[in-house]
Amino acid sequence: MPALEEYQKAIEKRISELTLPAEPKNLYEPIYYFLSLGGKRMRPVLVLMSHELFGGNYTKVISPALAMELFHNFSLVHDDIMDKAALRRGKATVHEKWNTNTAILSGDAILIEAYKLLAEVESKYLSVVLTLFNRTAIEVCEGQVMDMDFETRSDVTIDEYIKMIRLKTAVLLGGCLETGAILAGADKENAKHIYDFGINLGIAFQLHDDILDVYADPDKFGKAVGGDIAANKKTFLFLKTLELCSQKDKSEIKELLKLKGKSKIERMITLYNKNNIKAETEKVMGEFFNNALVSLGKINADEEKKMPLRIMAEELMRREK
Amino acid sequence: MPALEEYQKAIEKRISELTLPAEPKNLYEPIYYFLSLGGKRMRPVLVLMSHELFGGNYTKVISPALAMELFHNFSLVHDDIMDKAALRRGKATVHEKWNTNTAILSGDAILIEAYKLLAEVESKYLSVVLTLFNRTAIEVCEGQVMDMDFETRSDVTIDEYIKMIRLKTAVLLGGCLETGAILAGADKENAKHIYDFGINLGIAFQLHDDILDVYADPDKFGKAVGGDIAANKKTFLFLKTLELCSQKDKSEIKELLKLKGKSKIERMITLYNKNNIKAETEKVMGEFFNNALVSLGKINADEEKKMPLRIMAEELMRREK
Repeated sequence: MPALEEYQKAIEKRISELTLPAEPKNLYEPIYYFLSLGGKRMRPVLVLMSHELFGGNYTKVISPALAMELFHNFSLVHDDIMDKAALRRGKATVHEKWNTNTAILSGDAILIEAYKLLAEVESKYLSVVLTLFNRTAIEVCEGQVMDMDFETRSDVTIDEYIKMIRLKTAVLLGGCLETGAILAGADKENAKHIYDFGINLGIAFQLHDDILDVYADPDKFGKAVGGDIAANKKTFLFLKTLELCSQKDKSEIKELLKLKGKSKIERMITLYNKNNIKAETEKVMGEFFNNALVSLGKINADEEKKMPLRIMAEELMRREK
Repeated sequence: MPALEEYQKAIEKRISELTLPAEPKNLYEPIYYFLSLGGKRMRPVLVLMSHELFGGNYTKVISPALAMELFHNFSLVHDDIMDKAALRRGKATVHEKWNTNTAILSGDAILIEAYKLLAEVESKYLSVVLTLFNRTAIEVCEGQVMDMDFETRSDVTIDEYIKMIRLKTAVLLGGCLETGAILAGADKENAKHIYDFGINLGIAFQLHDDILDVYADPDKFGKAVGGDIAANKKTFLFLKTLELCSQKDKSEIKELLKLKGKSKIERMITLYNKNNIKAETEKVMGEFFNNALVSLGKINADEEKKMPLRIMAEELMRREK
C-alpha cells in the first residue's frame, strides 16, 4: 500500500493540473488562490486510502477524491465569510483579499466544480456516489448553521454539540471513506463500517482540536492558544466544565464571557483545570476513537490492509497542531 | 398538449410537497419562505414543455424540472445579497428577513437540494443531465461575476454585454429546454436546436427586460420605471446610446452617472429617445427572437407540437411587466 506522502503528492499533482477558464478572473483566480494555500489534503487522501483498502487502485479515483477536497474548500470559503476570519493558513481569506461578493460567488463555483469532477465517476457508480455526496453536503451545511446558532444560545447541551461536530466535520470524513469504498465495489455492509469509522474518527478529531486549542504546546501549535475561549466558542471543554463545575464557578464563567483579553483566557483555563477538563475530554475522545477502531475491525478485509488507516488515525490523535 | 397553467400547477404542487427537515430552522425556513414568493416558474415549465415536444409525458420529469427552479432560486438568494436588494417580488429578501450568513448558507442548501432532485433522474440519463446542469450552473456564476465587474468598468462593449446576459440568463433557459429533451430521448441534433432556441429566446427576453425598465407602462409595470438608470446599470439601452450618441450627449451621460433622483432618470430617457434607442434595441431583440424561431423550426418534430413553445415565446416578448 502506498505511503501517505504518495497519496498527498497524487492529489497535489491533480490540483496543479486543474484547468479552469482564465475569465472571468474574479471567479477563477480566488479558486486557484485558495487551493494554493495547501493543507494536509486529509479528505481526498481518505478517499484514496479507503479505495485501496477495498482492493482498488488509488490512481483511478483521484478525480472524485479531488471533488471532496473542493467541497471542503467551498465550505471553508463561505465559513470564513460568516466567521469574519481574516486569515486562513496564515494567508488572507478570499473575502479579505477580494471582497464578500467575490467570496460568495467563488465559493459557489468551487462547489459546482466539485460536482463536475464527481460527474466523471464511472456511470454504474454515479447515482450512489452522487446521492451520498448530496446527503453529506447538506449535512455539513446543517452543522454550520447549528454552529452559528450556538453563538447566541446559552443552553447548548453536550449532545447537541456532538451532533453539531458530527455534521460539520465528521460526516465529510465518513463520506470520503465511503466514496472510496463504493468505487472499489465494496458491499453495503463494509461501506457502512468504513463510514462509521470516519464518523467516530471525525468526532474524536474535533474533540482533539478542542483540547489543542487550550492545551497545545505554544511552540508547536503555530498559533496562539485560547482562540476558542477568546471567541466564546461553545466547545466540548466549555460545555463539560459548565456541567461539572460549582455554582460559583458557573457565575465566574458567565462573567468571563463578557470580558476580553489575556486574563480572560487564563482565568477560563484555571477553571478548566480545576474541573479536570482535559482528562474528561480525553476520556470521551478516547471512546469515539475506540468506536472508530471497532468499526475498522468489523470490515471484511485483510488486517494488514487496514494498517495504514489505523496508523493515520493514531497520528491524527497524536498531532500537536 | 397541456396548457401552460397545467404545467405551472404541477410545479406548484411539487413545491408544496417538498419535504425538508424541520431543523435547523435557520437553514430550511428561508428555503420554504423563498419558494413561497412565487413567480412564473418559467424555467421548470420549459423543462416540461420541451419534454412533451419530444414525445415525453411531462408528469415524469417534475423532479428535474423543480431542480431547475431550485437552481434559479439559489442564484437569486445569493444575487440579492450581492446586489444589496431589500425586496424580491415585493417581499423582504432572505438576507433582509434573516441575515447575510443565513442567506449564504440557505442559498448553498438550495443548490444542494437541486442536485438531490437531479440525482433522481433515470440512471441512463444521469451522467449527461448532470454534466449539462454543471456546465449551465458554472456559466450562470460567470455571468453574475461579469455583471458585477461591469459596475466598476466604463469600457463595457455591447458584445460583452450580450455575452454576459447569455451566461447570466439565457443558458439556464437553454439548459432547461435541453434537459427536458434529453429526458425524452431526443437525439443530439434536436437537443442542440432546442438549446439554441432557449439561448436566443433568453437573450431576447433580457433585452425586452431592459426595454421594459425604461418604456413600460407604469400602471402595468408594477414597479417604478428607470430602476436600471437609477442604479447606473450598463444595459443594452445604455451601451447602445453611448455608441450612437454625439460627444456632447456622451458628456451629459457621464455627468448623469454621478447624479441621483428623478431628474437623472428623466434626462437619461430624453437622451435615449433622442438616439431612438427603443427602436434600436427592438431591432436587435427581434433578431435574437427570430434566431430562436429558426432554431425551433429546425427541430424534427410535428409543427403542431411546437406551437405551445412558439406561443409561450411570443407571449414573453409581449409581456408588459
